[in-house]
Amino acid sequence: MSKQDRTPEQHNKKMKKIKSAMDKRIAAADEDRGVVVLITGNGKGKSSSGFGMVIRALGHGMKAGVVQFIKQADSCGEQLYLAEREPNLQQYAMDTGFTWDTQDKEGDIAAAEKTWAHAEQLLADPEIQLVLLDELTYMISYSYLDVDKIVDAVVNRPLHQNVVITGRGASEELIEISDTVSEVKEIKHAFAAGVKAQKGVEF
Amino acid sequence: MSKQDRTPEQHNKKMKKIKSAMDKRIAAADEDRGVVVLITGNGKGKSSSGFGMVIRALGHGMKAGVVQFIKQADSCGEQLYLAEREPNLQQYAMDTGFTWDTQDKEGDIAAAEKTWAHAEQLLADPEIQLVLLDELTYMISYSYLDVDKIVDAVVNRPLHQNVVITGRGASEELIEISDTVSEVKEIKHAFAAGVKAQKGVEF
Repeated sequence: MSKQDRTPEQHNKKMKKIKSAMDKRIAAADEDRGVVVLITGNGKGKSSSGFGMVIRALGHGMKAGVVQFIKQADSCGEQLYLAEREPNLQQYAMDTGFTWDTQDKEGDIAAAEKTWAHAEQLLADPEIQLVLLDELTYMISYSYLDVDKIVDAVVNRPLHQNVVITGRGASEELIEISDTVSEVKEIKHAFAAGVKAQKGVEF
Repeated sequence: MSKQDRTPEQHNKKMKKIKSAMDKRIAAADEDRGVVVLITGNGKGKSSSGFGMVIRALGHGMKAGVVQFIKQADSCGEQLYLAEREPNLQQYAMDTGFTWDTQDKEGDIAAAEKTWAHAEQLLADPEIQLVLLDELTYMISYSYLDVDKIVDAVVNRPLHQNVVITGRGASEELIEISDTVSEVKEIKHAFAAGVKAQKGVEF
């Protein structure tokens, strides 16, 4: 059942269920456990923050995985950088033709599902110590992926695995399953002043 | 003259001068020029965002420089990662004994000045396409560095150089000289729930 089809009672019940699963996880783990970090909001710096944490993990010799929703493979510097150099990193990007204007909703959903399958594999692998799900939030806001499926995979991941989720407009369920939530607010943006997107900064 | 010593009139005059220098820079550059990105606020993800942009720049084959105020060398994963692998990156960290509790203010100021000298070199080098000044904001809030000196170096840097500044409580001058400003707000933090800082996520 997608989020949109729920009655308020069903929604409350669902949120309580998420909370209870989270409480169980926290109780089982004492204080040394993997965390979920959610970086949302409309300001600049969300994806780069996620990639910074990937580098942080790799720097400590950990294994990490990146799944990029929306962004194409080879389109951004961090992806290029890591693809060339990093045996400890698994990367996958949804580059099968996501269309922002949803001229092909069926195609978009198929691409989202295919991309999510890679995320699920990473979220089930205890060898992977950090998983970045870049721009995942949009898959929920567009109802391209079922939020329950995402919640289940994240809550039931290996105990010491860390997850970083980025994207605007995070849903209530994502906030609930996250240990740390930052909202990046746009105070000023160079685009508004007519400055071109700068390679190395914006992509 | 430090910020604290100014009268309101002097402050307004100073801010106007900064604005006019910025306007001149913008007019000279049409729309293809380097930008200043400021990531401030009390939430998690500011430094990792800065390092993500460093990786982004390196991924495009650019040269970059990192100066870390406060943080010690070898203390965080991203620094370790890049130090080992990256010939295109110059890194310097203020590891000469900064004390949060200011038991040694003179020592802290000397360390800040020494660290700033590295930043000034990078900000004068047209070969360097991205400079990260990590946690610089605190040097201004503690009056360890003169804000005018920082403003001058940033505004007069090479035309196509990008600068990323991170840290809580950015001063008005830093906001003024920045093209893009994001405020990272803390919505939730794992520490508050008693979770230990996780290697690869928090450091």
